[in-house]
Amino acid sequence: MTVDTRTTALQDMYQEWERAGVSPFFPVIESNDGNLVATDRYPALTMFGSCDYLGLSQSPVLKEAAIDAVRRYGTNTYGAQLLCGHTRLHHNIEATLRAMSPLDSAILFPSGMAANLAVITAMASKDDVIINDRTDHVSIFMGSQLSGAEVRTFPHNNMAKLESLLQRSGDKRRRIVIVDGLYSADGDFAPLDQIAALADRYDARIVVDEAHSFGVVGPNGLGVAEYYGVLDRVDAVVATMSKALGSTGGFVLTNSEIERQLRYMAPSYTSSRGSAPAAAGATLASLRLLAESGADLRRRLDVNVQLVLTGLRAAGIDLMNTRSHIVPVLVRDEDKTVAVANWLMERGIFTATFVYPHVPQNTGRLRIGITAGHSTEECERLVALIVEASREFAF
Amino acid sequence: MTVDTRTTALQDMYQEWERAGVSPFFPVIESNDGNLVATDRYPALTMFGSCDYLGLSQSPVLKEAAIDAVRRYGTNTYGAQLLCGHTRLHHNIEATLRAMSPLDSAILFPSGMAANLAVITAMASKDDVIINDRTDHVSIFMGSQLSGAEVRTFPHNNMAKLESLLQRSGDKRRRIVIVDGLYSADGDFAPLDQIAALADRYDARIVVDEAHSFGVVGPNGLGVAEYYGVLDRVDAVVATMSKALGSTGGFVLTNSEIERQLRYMAPSYTSSRGSAPAAAGATLASLRLLAESGADLRRRLDVNVQLVLTGLRAAGIDLMNTRSHIVPVLVRDEDKTVAVANWLMERGIFTATFVYPHVPQNTGRLRIGITAGHSTEECERLVALIVEASREFAF
Repeated sequence: MTVDTRTTALQDMYQEWERAGVSPFFPVIESNDGNLVATDRYPALTMFGSCDYLGLSQSPVLKEAAIDAVRRYGTNTYGAQLLCGHTRLHHNIEATLRAMSPLDSAILFPSGMAANLAVITAMASKDDVIINDRTDHVSIFMGSQLSGAEVRTFPHNNMAKLESLLQRSGDKRRRIVIVDGLYSADGDFAPLDQIAALADRYDARIVVDEAHSFGVVGPNGLGVAEYYGVLDRVDAVVATMSKALGSTGGFVLTNSEIERQLRYMAPSYTSSRGSAPAAAGATLASLRLLAESGADLRRRLDVNVQLVLTGLRAAGIDLMNTRSHIVPVLVRDEDKTVAVANWLMERGIFTATFVYPHVPQNTGRLRIGITAGHSTEECERLVALIVEASREFAF
Repeated sequence: MTVDTRTTALQDMYQEWERAGVSPFFPVIESNDGNLVATDRYPALTMFGSCDYLGLSQSPVLKEAAIDAVRRYGTNTYGAQLLCGHTRLHHNIEATLRAMSPLDSAILFPSGMAANLAVITAMASKDDVIINDRTDHVSIFMGSQLSGAEVRTFPHNNMAKLESLLQRSGDKRRRIVIVDGLYSADGDFAPLDQIAALADRYDARIVVDEAHSFGVVGPNGLGVAEYYGVLDRVDAVVATMSKALGSTGGFVLTNSEIERQLRYMAPSYTSSRGSAPAAAGATLASLRLLAESGADLRRRLDVNVQLVLTGLRAAGIDLMNTRSHIVPVLVRDEDKTVAVANWLMERGIFTATFVYPHVPQNTGRLRIGITAGHSTEECERLVALIVEASREFAF
């Protein structure tokens, strides 16, 4: 998070791509229609780089709800939720989330990042230790640093190392283990069954960031903790509306004690504007739509995911340990990753380019986001083109 | 930002107000029409607690632009701006902001808080010192802590103390002075003319958070730095769309070197969702409307501000050092502040209740936000009722 010598070298790398006209970053989205996107460089790309896992950001139901909210409340709320920004929509979103989950309380934030900063600084302070997976979302590390607690990390999903850190932290007032449910750049799950068992053994609290899993994973779409049946063992679930829910904003499911502290004390809640009416309207419609047809959407998504994973793995392509709708196609070298991204765009496919420093050096990858809105044909074409690219570029 | 013993006492205070049915917090906004708001407790309140300083969140022009954007792009972008969330609207907002200001670059964030976290961590690191006014917005302190720099503070607007801190920081690589242009809870300006002179003398950089002044203060509405004619001396202006601009989101005006670092490296930019289409659409319309009729709106606002300030000060009411559309009516005692807020609501006026810990203990105040959308009659009624309350409650 601090300026260092790598920064200049990195910026040179990005600038070199810009100069050569191959930068995959900041494509200007001119318009879109479902999965078909026109950018400033390409007239028609099938979007395979999104986090819109259930395709809901293009749903007419959500659009009409957002429009209704704008007509009713205007283009912004009057102030922070605490003071005068808590509309009936915000109120109903929290009530709906509370009813969906076994946790006592639900609280709405302007973003997932704001939610992480709030819940971590509320739960931890200087006498505590926070133990993070090294692959956790950056906002977890930001919240951890702001809390004043000691921060330790374990290598990705390494349970032996997590246990040893827990063993050695008996002198701390509280031990708080924080993981992503589903890892955004890798597509794999945190083994929350094992983490829950370790938390029991060493008297630790658990926070799970279900940003990429809420709405998608688990029997009721509540995320990876629900999938493993340990939701009752988790102290706080953080998630976002900006992925599967097709809107914007973040939220926390937790107990009423933490909720109260967040509502009155958390700076990223009390001193930041809550969701705008349009976002709140779309979110509420999305939660209703999920209650009605979430299971169908998840089944449709799963068919697409199996098609893509099976097709690519059969061709020997390295997809790391993904088991989800997030499919990292590992290319490794940064320049080559960018070249493959361009090669795919020339053939009508958009994938998200993840390179250093957002993933470790020499682990550049195309990050594919499969959605329930993709057709079988679109998924088959994606597989065929990536298999062809893997021969062309030898990855 | 850490849990401490005060937290419990504070929560008891808030809970006591809830139990007694007098908590002014979390009013549920059922509907609104211009300045008239229906809440779960009151059918018709004139909103005097907002940050909607030009009344634009209720503008039909902004509403239609938000609705157009939803129809065209859906209820969310596909991902982070870096990867696939930078629509033509986002692009045009940045171009418009760049053209409005003498600084080289403009970059759009999901919120003002995200913008502060980004710009401060980009500009400062462990060999530097950040010098903050103690009344700065909390997100400035969060960004300062995350940067790893040494953090020093000076009492509100105390230039002698600022100079002595600058004098004693000659051994640091960089000195960065960060202030709010207009203080959100007090209504006064940072003396940026003096701060610029000190920054010249001691080779310091300046960051100004113009959240409450952008669109409102200065000949072209660029904020307090423009008002003092020192915009060319400022290294970064941070501001937000969620106040005078009537939309949501934040932005940074800065030089191209810092811009590049923010675009590729700042976690609150690269790893957080940018503005949703509705917000981007409303923002772009708002910037166009400001270019056309900003001067008129500011004149109308100023008439309202002078009416309220003159009327209340003539009655001997303590408004601290405000000189702006943010009018703190100082009541002091927390319970009494809440009682006055309720008394005003019973008479049809909503003001924002600011009490500890959001302002120092025993400086509870009603924070009035005057807007260009208030009528003369509304402002006169506000003044009359506050004067009556000041006699009733002896403040």
